[in-house]
Amino acid sequence: MKVLDGKNISNIIKAEIKESVDVRLSSGLKQPHLAAILVGDDGASLTYVGSKVRSCKQVGFISTLIRLKDSITEEDLLIEIKKLNKNNKVDGYIVQLPLPKHINEERVLLAVEPNKDVDGFHPTNFGKMALELPSFIPATPFGIMEILKRYNIQTSKKSCLVIGRSNIVGRPISILMSQKGSYGNATVTVAHSKTKNIKDLTLQADIIISALGIPEFLKEDMVKQDVVVIDVGITRVEDITHPKGYVIKGDVDFKNVSKKASYITPVPGGVGPMTIAMLLKNTLLACQRND
Amino acid sequence: MKVLDGKNISNIIKAEIKESVDVRLSSGLKQPHLAAILVGDDGASLTYVGSKVRSCKQVGFISTLIRLKDSITEEDLLIEIKKLNKNNKVDGYIVQLPLPKHINEERVLLAVEPNKDVDGFHPTNFGKMALELPSFIPATPFGIMEILKRYNIQTSKKSCLVIGRSNIVGRPISILMSQKGSYGNATVTVAHSKTKNIKDLTLQADIIISALGIPEFLKEDMVKQDVVVIDVGITRVEDITHPKGYVIKGDVDFKNVSKKASYITPVPGGVGPMTIAMLLKNTLLACQRND
Repeated sequence: MKVLDGKNISNIIKAEIKESVDVRLSSGLKQPHLAAILVGDDGASLTYVGSKVRSCKQVGFISTLIRLKDSITEEDLLIEIKKLNKNNKVDGYIVQLPLPKHINEERVLLAVEPNKDVDGFHPTNFGKMALELPSFIPATPFGIMEILKRYNIQTSKKSCLVIGRSNIVGRPISILMSQKGSYGNATVTVAHSKTKNIKDLTLQADIIISALGIPEFLKEDMVKQDVVVIDVGITRVEDITHPKGYVIKGDVDFKNVSKKASYITPVPGGVGPMTIAMLLKNTLLACQRND
Repeated sequence: MKVLDGKNISNIIKAEIKESVDVRLSSGLKQPHLAAILVGDDGASLTYVGSKVRSCKQVGFISTLIRLKDSITEEDLLIEIKKLNKNNKVDGYIVQLPLPKHINEERVLLAVEPNKDVDGFHPTNFGKMALELPSFIPATPFGIMEILKRYNIQTSKKSCLVIGRSNIVGRPISILMSQKGSYGNATVTVAHSKTKNIKDLTLQADIIISALGIPEFLKEDMVKQDVVVIDVGITRVEDITHPKGYVIKGDVDFKNVSKKASYITPVPGGVGPMTIAMLLKNTLLACQRND
């Protein structure tokens, strides 16, 4: 059994991005610039955005954090987005979710210029990804593909079960795993809340990618020997013995499933750290496309 | 066993569209207008486009056929497309494929204004479909969903095997069948050229949608009792006993598989006739969105 160390890979990717930035700067090319819009002051969102801003610094990007009041109207938020769309100094930007309830999230995400949509949430980018055209792949599925590549885990001709059909993880990763290429070409099944007899499916899968959000859902008796397990679940579970009062649990009973797995991502330290690295990678791509 | 009569359903849909057009006209609303660009004079393409033009007449649409020489440059074709994008009289249009080899098909399809892309081939429409936003669904998968609905074939909680991962059939139908809703919610597996042991998969499936292009690939011993079979394959097979010198074969050995199937589409007369009906439906939708 080998633990897929997302933390380590994300650091390698960040170092590679830093190197690209250094080469760019010494060649007189533009420094990549990521902007983030944060509406309100939700604690978790502040933490995420803060972490993205720090990561920009690490890799030598310019970052701009645009903080807007919780009470901002949808129209005013759309005006800020139009400004970013027009601002040539910004290569890519994200709108930190969730947005306040009085704002239509869909309308906001559709207003983001696809060429700057480094989160890869705009339909145009989703469609380009599905049709195998250059696009921005959402960070989490992009990170999963990168883990598989870096560990040289061949997926061609393998059966892959994706648990979850969300727009930002399950659906895109199911498409990517099924596309042509040595880190694709898997026979992919998408399971979800209406799937019957899920254990029959998990027992058959060579690769399981779980993005369900049910702590320790996947048990040892549900997987076959030498399965590859990618755990995208991140759920806070109350734990009064822990200083924070909670622990983070994945979808997989790591302790026991890891006994049978050939490769497995831990939680935390697996897919999680990859998301910021791939957001930075998308921003670098956006900048390179502007050269 | 029940034969899913696509010919009959397509006629019902066309009658419904005709009725909507009549109501529109008597309400003083605009008559729907479909345009088609045909480059060159390939026989099959002429037949297809001719059939689309005739169907427009049947349902009361205006149709415009723009015929361009085989020798047209990509730039000149793109100028024609820009004209159609700007022409307010045209609700939707198609560019008949294939295009001559000197023209980059991808570049042309990307130039089509998504709001007029009634073929649903533009990435923005593909992405919107995948993200469950209003879009134009490509005619063949749209037609398959419509057959399932009209025959009230429940798909929720069923296992569905899609054979083929093309951008215009396999991939989109796999997404539609897996989405929420009573004619979705299936647990979908996508098989393709790199899939191992396909018989294991066909034998387990409650619903099989085959878009492979191998005549009579799916045999009786590969399916379970009461399977629902949707055959998207259309291959010309030489047959000197037939006046045309060929017959059209589907992916399914209809004669024998139909003995075990609960529902099955024939070829011809199954999915095929639905494609034009759904193209017309998309054009009506485009027109309605312009009201």
